[in-house]
Amino acid sequence: MPERTVEIDIRKDLFGANEEAAAMNAATFKDHGITAIDIMGSVGTGKTQIIEALCDRLKGMYRILMIAGDLATTIDADRVSSHGVDTVQINTRTACHLDARMVRVALNDVDLSLYDLVFIENVGNLICPAGYSLGVDKKVVVVSVTEGPYMVRKHPLTIKRSDMVVINKIDLAEAIGVDVDSLVNDVREVDARIPVYSVSAKSDTGIDRLIEGLGL
Amino acid sequence: MPERTVEIDIRKDLFGANEEAAAMNAATFKDHGITAIDIMGSVGTGKTQIIEALCDRLKGMYRILMIAGDLATTIDADRVSSHGVDTVQINTRTACHLDARMVRVALNDVDLSLYDLVFIENVGNLICPAGYSLGVDKKVVVVSVTEGPYMVRKHPLTIKRSDMVVINKIDLAEAIGVDVDSLVNDVREVDARIPVYSVSAKSDTGIDRLIEGLGL
Repeated sequence: MPERTVEIDIRKDLFGANEEAAAMNAATFKDHGITAIDIMGSVGTGKTQIIEALCDRLKGMYRILMIAGDLATTIDADRVSSHGVDTVQINTRTACHLDARMVRVALNDVDLSLYDLVFIENVGNLICPAGYSLGVDKKVVVVSVTEGPYMVRKHPLTIKRSDMVVINKIDLAEAIGVDVDSLVNDVREVDARIPVYSVSAKSDTGIDRLIEGLGL
Repeated sequence: MPERTVEIDIRKDLFGANEEAAAMNAATFKDHGITAIDIMGSVGTGKTQIIEALCDRLKGMYRILMIAGDLATTIDADRVSSHGVDTVQINTRTACHLDARMVRVALNDVDLSLYDLVFIENVGNLICPAGYSLGVDKKVVVVSVTEGPYMVRKHPLTIKRSDMVVINKIDLAEAIGVDVDSLVNDVREVDARIPVYSVSAKSDTGIDRLIEGLGL
């Protein structure tokens, strides 16, 4: 079970205030020496699975907090909690993304001196979360071969607004009939500077390289 | 200085204008004897594949128009065009869903007397499209076993706002490790009245039952 479940009323959140709240979050993270990473991507791409794999590797080295964003349920926070990591669940009810003020509400609710690494799992959605800064060090987008061959080409803005692309579930590429190299090339065509990591969180492939890429 | 400053509740205004445009679209469809179906769901769930399968079956009986919504590319419209069906692509650039006004612009651009069945493939997103009426006869949400086991439970509002749920790619259920019956039960728990159809558009399974369910 997560440490807390925070219910957010989006009607109180104004779009224009997001950048301000993001800057405040960034300052808060910096003050506490915390590295914060926003993990975006559609439902079912394996964001939670990747966070679980990262936590298993990193929990001896970092004091980790995971903040999970979902419209409903505490499924993701519960999964990560079971790895011995503290979690906070944000339920956005109708909102299709986290914004900086929701994260601020969650941060105000925990003792940040207890942590030095925060994973924020955004609401499962390949589009909207990319438009909202949360004040993190890195925005990572997770795509999965199970999304088929077109998700990168169809979402160039999400890719451009990310600091890193993770292609997950490469173990299923053959069964699904999706070519991983061609997805990597699609990312390069959108922006050749964005690092791409191909992984299978399930079969624990590529996680060490991903950790290096994240600078952790 | 302006004579007056009027404060607009953006969301109220957007939704209000959308309902008005949706009512106009509904009237336009009715005037032309057109059945219109909005097909929603995440990227890679097989919305286009299902429309292709439906077009192959139905193009002898109906004069079909397909309207495709995507942030970028004409991939989906191109695919459906190759089945000998007329298509219109809407590129929303940044918008995470179609709204009734976008559909209205598309409808104004074609001779509607040429059609009696319109499939609207919404932007690939399991959340936002459900909040916007387009003026259609039926809103169908496509989920796929490739989205994992939680997409229904995490998105009860999308399910509730749909007239039908289609579970696609059941041929991959075993490889992915997702139980189709359990997804069906999740839908029933959200709203027992919503019909659920399990299909594999790729292997042409369940398409005839789906067509019956759509009343076509």
